[in-house]
Amino acid sequence: MISFTEEMASCAADVERALDRLLTEERLTGPGVPPERLVAAMRHGSLNGGKRLRPLLVRQAAGVFGMPKDRSLVAGLAVEAVHCYSLIHDDLPAMDDDDLRRGQPTVHKAYDEATAILAGDALQTLAFDLLAGEDCHPDPAVRVRLVAELALGAGAGGMVGGQMRDIEGETGGFSDGEITRMQAMKTGALIRAAVRMGALLGGAGDDALGQLTVYAEAAGRAFQLADDLLDVTASAEAMGKATGKDARNGKQTLVGLIGVDATRRHLAELTHDALSALVPFGEEADGLRATAMHFASRER
Amino acid sequence: MISFTEEMASCAADVERALDRLLTEERLTGPGVPPERLVAAMRHGSLNGGKRLRPLLVRQAAGVFGMPKDRSLVAGLAVEAVHCYSLIHDDLPAMDDDDLRRGQPTVHKAYDEATAILAGDALQTLAFDLLAGEDCHPDPAVRVRLVAELALGAGAGGMVGGQMRDIEGETGGFSDGEITRMQAMKTGALIRAAVRMGALLGGAGDDALGQLTVYAEAAGRAFQLADDLLDVTASAEAMGKATGKDARNGKQTLVGLIGVDATRRHLAELTHDALSALVPFGEEADGLRATAMHFASRER
Repeated sequence: MISFTEEMASCAADVERALDRLLTEERLTGPGVPPERLVAAMRHGSLNGGKRLRPLLVRQAAGVFGMPKDRSLVAGLAVEAVHCYSLIHDDLPAMDDDDLRRGQPTVHKAYDEATAILAGDALQTLAFDLLAGEDCHPDPAVRVRLVAELALGAGAGGMVGGQMRDIEGETGGFSDGEITRMQAMKTGALIRAAVRMGALLGGAGDDALGQLTVYAEAAGRAFQLADDLLDVTASAEAMGKATGKDARNGKQTLVGLIGVDATRRHLAELTHDALSALVPFGEEADGLRATAMHFASRER
Repeated sequence: MISFTEEMASCAADVERALDRLLTEERLTGPGVPPERLVAAMRHGSLNGGKRLRPLLVRQAAGVFGMPKDRSLVAGLAVEAVHCYSLIHDDLPAMDDDDLRRGQPTVHKAYDEATAILAGDALQTLAFDLLAGEDCHPDPAVRVRLVAELALGAGAGGMVGGQMRDIEGETGGFSDGEITRMQAMKTGALIRAAVRMGALLGGAGDDALGQLTVYAEAAGRAFQLADDLLDVTASAEAMGKATGKDARNGKQTLVGLIGVDATRRHLAELTHDALSALVPFGEEADGLRATAMHFASRER
């Protein structure tokens, strides 16, 4: 059995390779040919050595039902395209105003704001394009469910709504419940979508889908708490991006409200919840187990 | 038989009513509840008395195959949601920097830039959500084709790519061929998608789809030329937005390059092409005919 680190690296390499092939003027064609600059900006915002955790979750959740990993890659790319678009838009001056991401200039720094807005827009469109194609899954009924699931996770009641609440929260005064609800949307919704999409790809029944949703919600929450902890405890060098900036930007996090130790205890509880939800599954769910444990202990 | 003006008004009223019901915190729900401010900005950018030409084209193209108008409404809403999102983003300071749209403050003026970016993002997601649902069409195989069609029209090789080329064109030097290719993407691609989506909803075979695509490309081009002519010839009062601004912004249009008279002649030829493509169809295509003639003669 391969280690979690090896599995993550292998998935990330598959995603990187597939995105590299996909994000070209030849492959992105429509009624017209995509402008070179737009494609370059889409590549800059996507081919950046990310951990590709969302495609990994799609793969692992589909794997619970025995689906070979190459058959869940396209759906994974779709979730990753949404994630990348959201980072490009979140980094904009009107939003979080970040100059660096993973040690590289953000898209609006490397290009300009207009190009960054459009590159994000086009990556979102690409996500749904990927899910609609036969390469994603042979059954159209499965493909539309994936479209609906990704839209639910990405939209006003999910990721984008969470980013809006996060910005509103900068004026202060969020309770811990409000922070939890905001984060469940901002980062949790897409992680939830990734796991559920994997389960749907694999042909999960209602009960299994329900269990994996419980897993996804706990794991997504754990992931966010780990991220908040890292922002406080890690050095900028280790993270490849500015740290301690949540506090400087007046961003509300649970760590800021209840402290590092209480947050760590909460993270351990959530990891327990995520693992408990996997009890009905056999060793096919070991990947999802390893990911939840990784969230609990990750250093970057 | 009702007049074109009546048909357009009736479709616009249906779209307005449906969007009004759809864009609420109750209906847009996901893993979380959408923030009030985000929903308000989405409403501001959509419920603005637009002509709703794209849903009309979906309806008319589906009508060629006998589909009742209420059964093509959801797909029409999806195309309109993409159109509205593109207007919100195009109006941003980093893009066209417009303060007014249809006599009202643009979304970033009424709210702020971050909210406008997110409202546009969420409207794009909503479009695909609408297409994925059973209310759109009972057959998932049709629904995924609609998703693919809209993504093709909206993405890097379509609408977004066209907006990128338009911005690049502000530095000047476009030939008439380059302007035509840019406009075929920026406005043409979504009009093409609307017509083809209507045809697919109606169950068009390959030949009919091909003919309607020829119609859509000619009509879309005619629509853009009429718009460019209006920018030169109409008063700001009649348009409810700033006019003459293409030239002031250094935007390249065919009118600027070949003049008003030559553009009018070209518009007449395109209208002829659009109507010719409809020859194989009977009176069920009268709606599409009226729309093409409206583009040729519209005053606002």
